[in-house]
Amino acid sequence: MTMASPTVSLPHQVEVVNVGLPLFADSVRDQDRPVQHVDWRIPAGGNLDAVKALQSLYGDRAAAIDEANAEVVRRLDQGVPFLVEVARASDVVPGLDGRTIVHCGPPIDWTDVCDPLRRSIRAAVVAEGWADDVEQAHRLIERGEVRLEPANHHAMVVPMATAIGPSAPVFVVENEQGGTRAFSPINQGPGEVAWFGRETDAAIERLRFLRDVAGPLLSWTVRRTGPIDLLALAGQGIQMGDDLHMRTQATTNLLTRNLLPYIAEYEGPGRVEFARYLSGNHLFFLNLAMASAKSLTLWAQQVQGSSIVTSMARNGTTFGIRVAGSDHWYITEAPAVEDALYYSGYGPESSARDIGDSAVLELMGLGGPAAAGSPAVAAFLGGTMADALKATEAMAEICAGASSRFKLPTLDFRGTPVGVDLRRVVELGITPKVNTGVLHVSSGIGQVGAGVATAPVACFVEALLDLAARTS
Amino acid sequence: MTMASPTVSLPHQVEVVNVGLPLFADSVRDQDRPVQHVDWRIPAGGNLDAVKALQSLYGDRAAAIDEANAEVVRRLDQGVPFLVEVARASDVVPGLDGRTIVHCGPPIDWTDVCDPLRRSIRAAVVAEGWADDVEQAHRLIERGEVRLEPANHHAMVVPMATAIGPSAPVFVVENEQGGTRAFSPINQGPGEVAWFGRETDAAIERLRFLRDVAGPLLSWTVRRTGPIDLLALAGQGIQMGDDLHMRTQATTNLLTRNLLPYIAEYEGPGRVEFARYLSGNHLFFLNLAMASAKSLTLWAQQVQGSSIVTSMARNGTTFGIRVAGSDHWYITEAPAVEDALYYSGYGPESSARDIGDSAVLELMGLGGPAAAGSPAVAAFLGGTMADALKATEAMAEICAGASSRFKLPTLDFRGTPVGVDLRRVVELGITPKVNTGVLHVSSGIGQVGAGVATAPVACFVEALLDLAARTS
Repeated sequence: MTMASPTVSLPHQVEVVNVGLPLFADSVRDQDRPVQHVDWRIPAGGNLDAVKALQSLYGDRAAAIDEANAEVVRRLDQGVPFLVEVARASDVVPGLDGRTIVHCGPPIDWTDVCDPLRRSIRAAVVAEGWADDVEQAHRLIERGEVRLEPANHHAMVVPMATAIGPSAPVFVVENEQGGTRAFSPINQGPGEVAWFGRETDAAIERLRFLRDVAGPLLSWTVRRTGPIDLLALAGQGIQMGDDLHMRTQATTNLLTRNLLPYIAEYEGPGRVEFARYLSGNHLFFLNLAMASAKSLTLWAQQVQGSSIVTSMARNGTTFGIRVAGSDHWYITEAPAVEDALYYSGYGPESSARDIGDSAVLELMGLGGPAAAGSPAVAAFLGGTMADALKATEAMAEICAGASSRFKLPTLDFRGTPVGVDLRRVVELGITPKVNTGVLHVSSGIGQVGAGVATAPVACFVEALLDLAARTS
Repeated sequence: MTMASPTVSLPHQVEVVNVGLPLFADSVRDQDRPVQHVDWRIPAGGNLDAVKALQSLYGDRAAAIDEANAEVVRRLDQGVPFLVEVARASDVVPGLDGRTIVHCGPPIDWTDVCDPLRRSIRAAVVAEGWADDVEQAHRLIERGEVRLEPANHHAMVVPMATAIGPSAPVFVVENEQGGTRAFSPINQGPGEVAWFGRETDAAIERLRFLRDVAGPLLSWTVRRTGPIDLLALAGQGIQMGDDLHMRTQATTNLLTRNLLPYIAEYEGPGRVEFARYLSGNHLFFLNLAMASAKSLTLWAQQVQGSSIVTSMARNGTTFGIRVAGSDHWYITEAPAVEDALYYSGYGPESSARDIGDSAVLELMGLGGPAAAGSPAVAAFLGGTMADALKATEAMAEICAGASSRFKLPTLDFRGTPVGVDLRRVVELGITPKVNTGVLHVSSGIGQVGAGVATAPVACFVEALLDLAARTS
């Protein structure tokens, strides 16, 4: 059985090699003696079923899985998603009709929905015109008159606590080579907004603004620009300190400068309002990055017999993953967001659990994998670039490939890690870390900080056992 | 006599220390023996007058000079330049009236002006309406009916082969604390433009566009925005891979997003034209960075008894510097641009000499000093980030301080070097390297590449000797 291990470069002269607990290495080092520490851990935390599954998946079946994985990585790395259209969701998204609201994360019953997502869903119901206010919206939902579905089941991904209905405008992102299309709504921006779990009049008004002003303007603009190569912009943004998850400032600005002539030319209503909104929204590109990622994971998902993760999403209550070749969700409790920086007066006790579909980015080289190049992300990981580097290195340990388009200047243009391999995750006990925002758990006040969530290992173990069973 | 030397960290165990020629160190290393090489060179290249001047300036007078230098560095590092106005040059620039054209670099006679700058001056004369075409402009200048003056003599700095007349709009940049104001014209953008040494109808039309459309729009906008803290934007741009000289993309984009709502709102003529121009001009911020630098060097220049350089400018024929406390230009022949990447079909033989006032940026922590953080600049210095790091390290060897606002993520937020000290330059024989464009030497075709120019040491030696004489 050959297992992936952390790369070890042996020095020319070694006096002590320490395997396992770093404590011993530290103690030898304290005595000024050279020591080489090998970070070996008990595989799969000693879970015997998992060890058995790993033996099989790294054993006889390793070659077939590696081959499938290489194809998954190729699709995640080389597909070229274009923004081709901005349209009303019900006109373009399969199955998004009637009184349907799509939301972040795995499937969930209304009774289990967390507070910020409840508020966002109610805001969407009001914006759709199905209710006059959020109280009425609540009763409508309680009576089962609104269908709740994961955006992921409609080829869509939505960040944080986003929930949208059929009238919302969406970006249509096409991966022509793979024949896949994915969707995301227009980012709602900062402040008093539903995707942060707010349901105030202003938050509902923002949804209407996106539908009535931003959607038509962007739709007109994209017809003028023609298809926009989104990841070409993202590749530049990576070189400018974006991780494209927590920070999308550089890429948003690149796109903004490209759109500027069309905005200036637009004679429809709301040109100035839209310009103010875009000027104030450095996360505008987030949703475009996510739809790009989704168009690639949809393509990757078609590959059979691979151990690469192709969905990773949270609804604030549960955390779920899916694996290439299967539609099955492996679900566990959503984690808390750790390593967070909080707005003044807030802390872990007032924080909702990890939420949103944006973790799809971490599957194809953005977000955590790109941390090493992002000074802004480093601030959340300890403050130094060395801290950020550790996040990228951890992802490299559990990924099957490296990006050929997202290159980190700080690592002399090494590609970011791509393709989270279940086997490595379970063997090493290292799960993806996801750069994300933090919402208030119950007050409806919205965002209270930002930090890093660690994906829970349980669903990866379950998926691994299932893969071993499925492919045996 | 204590001289500044490259920092040397001695290892714990040393068997050979090599001082001077690296050849010996290499040979010891080839035999697998440890060796510590100390990069010691004969000071001032063995120029005895310079050595004597250095002995004096590093000796008895070192304390006074160090104190003056600290004040110069403080001014360069801590002044806060704001863009306060965009106005017609003749309305705000002292002494820019009548038939005056200001140009880059030290003072120069028309007969000595290089080809690209001649073309740019003729284009400006036509744009001013003093001649119907460039032939008529040429005759007017030959007859001595146009006064040529360095922009630097009017508190202005202009990039590459820029030449402008009294009707051109200028940015007014104020350093309130220092009581200084500096000016720069609006950047002409890429392509068929006079600042690249073109004098075609399109190049002249661009000058008219800046005067008739961009100037009024920007003037209106800045009245609406209020003063803009330019180096706060530049500080963010540095974190996003700009050196703010060869690359100003990130900072231009940050400013563009800030200006977007005002552009969208503008109802004067040419909104769409301006938006297209700004969308296509990633060097828009260059001139703002330069005016900011100039407002600080003007303040620094008032300090007496310092050995810090406060002007560095080239007109394509001569290269000149000025030192704090004096208005005197120390002038030598302009160097060629080395390490250049050329457009297809061009090379050193078709290249004009180093040109433009933009080297003022290298005096206050931007351009070469910021290379280590800029993947785009690295491409011109060998391609790896390690090559770019060398450029920053070389500047650190000859600079008296470090920036508290331009921090390089790649060096864990170390400040860029600020304040070029004549003494170190002459002692070490290291002069500033300037990131710059390359223009065609004679054809009027404009830009043919970009690269790095090395400031010639002769004018630094002359300035040093003069400083020793002045302060003795």
